[in-house]
Amino acid sequence: MTRTYVHGYDPRENTRLQDQASTLVELLHGDTAYPSGATVLEAGCGVGAQTVTLAANSPDARITSVDISETSLARAREAVDAAGLTNVTFRQADIFDLPFDPESFDHVFVCFVLEHLPDPVGALTELKKRLRKGGSMTVIEGDHGSTYFHPDSDHAHRAIRCQVELQKRAGGNANIGRQLYPLLTEAGFHCVRVSPRMVYVDAGRPDLVDGFTRKTFTAMVEGVRAPALDACLIDPTDFDRGVRDLYRTTEPDGVFCYTFFKAFAQNT
Amino acid sequence: MTRTYVHGYDPRENTRLQDQASTLVELLHGDTAYPSGATVLEAGCGVGAQTVTLAANSPDARITSVDISETSLARAREAVDAAGLTNVTFRQADIFDLPFDPESFDHVFVCFVLEHLPDPVGALTELKKRLRKGGSMTVIEGDHGSTYFHPDSDHAHRAIRCQVELQKRAGGNANIGRQLYPLLTEAGFHCVRVSPRMVYVDAGRPDLVDGFTRKTFTAMVEGVRAPALDACLIDPTDFDRGVRDLYRTTEPDGVFCYTFFKAFAQNT
Repeated sequence: MTRTYVHGYDPRENTRLQDQASTLVELLHGDTAYPSGATVLEAGCGVGAQTVTLAANSPDARITSVDISETSLARAREAVDAAGLTNVTFRQADIFDLPFDPESFDHVFVCFVLEHLPDPVGALTELKKRLRKGGSMTVIEGDHGSTYFHPDSDHAHRAIRCQVELQKRAGGNANIGRQLYPLLTEAGFHCVRVSPRMVYVDAGRPDLVDGFTRKTFTAMVEGVRAPALDACLIDPTDFDRGVRDLYRTTEPDGVFCYTFFKAFAQNT
Repeated sequence: MTRTYVHGYDPRENTRLQDQASTLVELLHGDTAYPSGATVLEAGCGVGAQTVTLAANSPDARITSVDISETSLARAREAVDAAGLTNVTFRQADIFDLPFDPESFDHVFVCFVLEHLPDPVGALTELKKRLRKGGSMTVIEGDHGSTYFHPDSDHAHRAIRCQVELQKRAGGNANIGRQLYPLLTEAGFHCVRVSPRMVYVDAGRPDLVDGFTRKTFTAMVEGVRAPALDACLIDPTDFDRGVRDLYRTTEPDGVFCYTFFKAFAQNT
């Protein structure tokens, strides 16, 4: 199966997202560290944006990072080498045709991957097979439908929905974060625990105003202008007003909210 | 000024909300405790749903709870007496005409009040005058626009927006939570820190499925059926489908999200 990416919100594909990654690293990765000797499969590592953090936070675990794209893997290797990390093995593989024996990993880690897959439960089921009994599954996904802000704006919501619609047409689901519990449960996992990781941004947090609201989220929405207009999802005036209204939330009286979801499950 | 309540989401006015109050008490009150001897003004105490927790968590602080309604105050007195608390003084008062000297309180606490006021900045400004220099202001509000769920449903969102519209027509703002930072800043407070308190509900949290999604939030939306239909905001079929879709989120594969906002500010 080939993954089709919508240009937009994907920390592995966008260098602008590297800018704000450090701000979000603690929020998303802070409670993930694997013990010495543990074997960890990172499924869908992309260009290695999460791999570097994952490997650095579990320096004595042995991480195997796979991606379907050799081009992405080459960049991931560079990133991991540049960080001086030596506990990652890279391998080209499709999540739906993994070259690993059953129950060959202690843990699986998946971040910003399910949102792109037409069959997320199928992917989780395949990953579960490679997990030993008693092993753990960790999944992190965003949810664009969790976005709200002040001043509120219908145009801004419409512009955001263009991205959601394009990702849907590419077979993905930009609002998948809220669904992690039912998806993991349906894939047969037990003891599923989901914790929302909300990014709350007001003028008292200028790093997030710039790094998240402006350069990550709004830049992502701006990035779908051409495909959204090509697909006749919105007219240019309305789209541009929506983007302006998103930037408006970065003024001193503005507020912006977005929520990532992190799930932890056992393979009992 | 007389406050007009929309029948619906107001923990002080609804006994069904008392049912779930204990689940949310820690989320909303857990980090509020005033030291021995501190004087605290609770503005808009209603029937005392928050007063009981506030007084119990700060047993050696002296709390003055005011409300515009003598009827509500009588119930608040009963609730505080029933809890065996002796550190609360009740007084009938209008937030815009408070019978207290300037700088006469060490702290002010406001919970689920600003959402009902046409002039929340004016109210905060009045409260600020009664706060001594160096004193603190704590504000807690919900935000109905923070609501999202799985399975998603346009009808459910439309039913929720009926409540938001009715509260708006009554002079309030059911989406005020996200605005606490700009409101407090505009009222002249410094060092404003806002923290979202998200209620995340999946089938792994049956107490919240029943206590929050079903008996609090959806019951609140159901409660505005008559006024919403009277105001021709929606047709009955659509409203009822929206409510059914909200209940649908309480099934084993459903998820429900709502966020309260808590702000803490200094009067420097």
